[in-house]
Amino acid sequence: MRLEIAVDLDYAIVGPPTDVLLQIEAAAMPDQRIESEALTIWSDSPIAAVAGEDGIGQRCWIRADNWLKAEYRAVVEVNRTIVDLAPLAPTPVRDLAGGLVPYLLPSRYCQSDRLEGFVRREFAGLEGGALAAALAAWVADSLEYRSNSSSGETTALDTFASRSGVCRDYAHLLVALARAGEIPARCVAGYAPGVEPPDFHAVAELWLDGAWRLVDATGMAPADTIARICVGRDATDIAFMTVFGMANFVHQSVRVTRL
Amino acid sequence: MRLEIAVDLDYAIVGPPTDVLLQIEAAAMPDQRIESEALTIWSDSPIAAVAGEDGIGQRCWIRADNWLKAEYRAVVEVNRTIVDLAPLAPTPVRDLAGGLVPYLLPSRYCQSDRLEGFVRREFAGLEGGALAAALAAWVADSLEYRSNSSSGETTALDTFASRSGVCRDYAHLLVALARAGEIPARCVAGYAPGVEPPDFHAVAELWLDGAWRLVDATGMAPADTIARICVGRDATDIAFMTVFGMANFVHQSVRVTRL
Amino acid sequence: MRLEIAVDLDYAIVGPPTDVLLQIEAAAMPDQRIESEALTIWSDSPIAAVAGEDGIGQRCWIRADNWLKAEYRAVVEVNRTIVDLAPLAPTPVRDLAGGLVPYLLPSRYCQSDRLEGFVRREFAGLEGGALAAALAAWVADSLEYRSNSSSGETTALDTFASRSGVCRDYAHLLVALARAGEIPARCVAGYAPGVEPPDFHAVAELWLDGAWRLVDATGMAPADTIARICVGRDATDIAFMTVFGMANFVHQSVRVTRL
Amino acid sequence: MRLEIAVDLDYAIVGPPTDVLLQIEAAAMPDQRIESEALTIWSDSPIAAVAGEDGIGQRCWIRADNWLKAEYRAVVEVNRTIVDLAPLAPTPVRDLAGGLVPYLLPSRYCQSDRLEGFVRREFAGLEGGALAAALAAWVADSLEYRSNSSSGETTALDTFASRSGVCRDYAHLLVALARAGEIPARCVAGYAPGVEPPDFHAVAELWLDGAWRLVDATGMAPADTIARICVGRDATDIAFMTVFGMANFVHQSVRVTRL
Repeated sequence: MRLEIAVDLDYAIVGPPTDVLLQIEAAAMPDQRIESEALTIWSDSPIAAVAGEDGIGQRCWIRADNWLKAEYRAVVEVNRTIVDLAPLAPTPVRDLAGGLVPYLLPSRYCQSDRLEGFVRREFAGLEGGALAAALAAWVADSLEYRSNSSSGETTALDTFASRSGVCRDYAHLLVALARAGEIPARCVAGYAPGVEPPDFHAVAELWLDGAWRLVDATGMAPADTIARICVGRDATDIAFMTVFGMANFVHQSVRVTRL
Repeated sequence: MRLEIAVDLDYAIVGPPTDVLLQIEAAAMPDQRIESEALTIWSDSPIAAVAGEDGIGQRCWIRADNWLKAEYRAVVEVNRTIVDLAPLAPTPVRDLAGGLVPYLLPSRYCQSDRLEGFVRREFAGLEGGALAAALAAWVADSLEYRSNSSSGETTALDTFASRSGVCRDYAHLLVALARAGEIPARCVAGYAPGVEPPDFHAVAELWLDGAWRLVDATGMAPADTIARICVGRDATDIAFMTVFGMANFVHQSVRVTRL
Repeated sequence: MRLEIAVDLDYAIVGPPTDVLLQIEAAAMPDQRIESEALTIWSDSPIAAVAGEDGIGQRCWIRADNWLKAEYRAVVEVNRTIVDLAPLAPTPVRDLAGGLVPYLLPSRYCQSDRLEGFVRREFAGLEGGALAAALAAWVADSLEYRSNSSSGETTALDTFASRSGVCRDYAHLLVALARAGEIPARCVAGYAPGVEPPDFHAVAELWLDGAWRLVDATGMAPADTIARICVGRDATDIAFMTVFGMANFVHQSVRVTRL
Repeated sequence: MRLEIAVDLDYAIVGPPTDVLLQIEAAAMPDQRIESEALTIWSDSPIAAVAGEDGIGQRCWIRADNWLKAEYRAVVEVNRTIVDLAPLAPTPVRDLAGGLVPYLLPSRYCQSDRLEGFVRREFAGLEGGALAAALAAWVADSLEYRSNSSSGETTALDTFASRSGVCRDYAHLLVALARAGEIPARCVAGYAPGVEPPDFHAVAELWLDGAWRLVDATGMAPADTIARICVGRDATDIAFMTVFGMANFVHQSVRVTRL
């Protein structure tokens, strides 16, 4: 599937010049090829690109003075087949490589340590793909998608109680539950058509049977329609923009269309 | 039902003389009559009795020097019939007296505000007694009773995630869920035979159809076997002992037998 | 000091008719006399007045259909002298009446149990009025008043870390610290001239030397300018409006002028 | 400085065979040379070594049946000079490599996002080494070292309020404050002589002037006496043992002596 991506960001910087970390470029990966791309950032200062988490994608440091204005245009070909999770074999944690260990552990917004009792009790007897499929279905069934029902401080534990949220909250909860069930899980920021309202999208990625498997518990983005931007432990790592100071929203648009 | 109650407390006080609030006397109430009782506190300082929350029972202030030693013996006749909650009519909150309002609101350990989404979603269409019965059954089914699985800092929200706890946690969670469902709910400390391990017991009390209804979500104490000590918003109010300093456990026993 | 109070509330109710608890009437108390008052609520359903917490003031239950519109006009004479807290003698907790005990304990938004170490360490050797004065000065110095820097979910512990907030947060933090220092403390909603922006105001009330003492850690309202509406453990009890459903802001104004 | 390290672990495994991740080997690094080492693990199943976080050190996966018994003996030469932090130049965040970005962000136990207001307000005008030195001194002064005053669930925010803790809590709080002040900071597990009681030690490491700088806010271990085991975002990453099941303590000893 080929996706055309167009992002426009316009923020006003309050106070002195401010450092900003921007993560909006689709990542070049075996299952998603960047056909063309152009990132334009209006800035008088040099822009520094640095590697993303797990060596996936890249992010850039910007020194923003008065405003932050960026434009991103890309065409990405996604070559991924949808995999049925349920039959995938479990991997005992002792067979996991060192790089996967962090994705078994709790993080700022995914307190998996607090949800172990729930997973053990409500999903007893399930493991690996069968557990992953059951958890994803449970999250999809149990939450109500409601714009503005959460904030940047909302954690998986909050969402577990409130039973509502946006894509970030669905991803956090699924990731936390999977880790509680001994399945390595990370959060992924990406682009996908059909996301409503159109925006940066957050989904989960679960390590099953030797590979990462994309899962969107909101149901808005099938795995074969997602172009990853970056990955990480949770929203702290995959925010599209981290401002080391204060920025005010002026305008932002994210359009993703299927070509 | 007649209960014989025998409590022995023995604590060592660390540091300077310390004020202690003790709540261990069974409360005289229409549905529980104190046949006989004797409270002995070894102390060189005067002991001051003050009223309990909602005017129920009494607690006493003690100045403890080096150690706190107390003995309580009582015979209580409980005259209460078990009421089936399910058919009880709901009371719209606007018909509640001022004294019930606090029991609709969140408290330190019962953050009902955070569980409204869950109750609304999972128990949609239920209210009043039908909701209360469903919530009590849900708590009983969803939690695992495990000694030492929680601490004095554990909240209803923690228990909602961990799915395990002791009587205090069962009571907190049921109270929080009931309030989230617009049913006034308070916590009750009491004595009951059959509590394992024998100890002070904590249960919930829900306001339904014009009266408070005792509910023990652990299932250990039927409503007609409980002698209340005190009531309150949550464990902060109903602790059997609140130490304004530091006390170390030496010995404690609580025996409740059916006569 | 005579205050003229004028409040206008206009909210749209989303969904079915909704129960609302309104607390906006100034309380008749020895140190504040209601010269005249008129509360008008536009509603087709009967309105029920119930007592406020601690028997102070009154609140009313309203059944709101489509919208909630209320108007309150009053003239209140405040007869209160400003008391210097520092010299006030401490009261040992064991001398406190039963009705004061709840104000020594942690509550939903004032987790005093978590701040005991801080108070003990940073204010060692102080108690009673001297401690109260030091805590109030510390809160005033340590926090930055910033509109919209907090939300209805912000707790005293959050504010203790963020070091910013609005009047509600100043009151919560002072109350939590006072309780951690064994001074009974409650939250008070009130009217005061000079509050910027003009709004319902929240302050703390500390029990010192046998009486409640009003303290506004924001410094906006001297104790002799405040007309209390209601009191309680924290914001849960003293909210001017508690909606058992959903209401959207249309218009609201609170004007308090010195006559 | 040459250190002799001797660790003995003895745990009973409850229930079925359990996977355990063990991180107890001193890491070979330019500033700490492993002269000799021997790790013995009693197990019938194969043991798999995997890389530690940031490629530092190694950890091993063990399948433990009935008990987990391990012995570690090593001699490590630490060649590190103590650096005065205060004069070290600040690095603007925009000059940080991608691998350092995670150490600017909040994590499970180091919620730096919640402490930004405090750092900005109380340490205004300081940055880089001067800020780091001030924060380390503040943590050392503000906390009281108390064994058993915290648990595995205690976060930096908890410690910030309670003002007491053990080495883990000192490290968490310093790391959280440093990140809040835009200094990359990670947690380090290590061995050091003079730790009382003798145990695995946790310290902070701050990125200043182009290098990681070890800081022990408890003051027990000067930077030139620490042999690192592993590094990570917080205690989740650097635990000496992570059990995917349940293990009960039987015996454990950690001895570190200066040769």
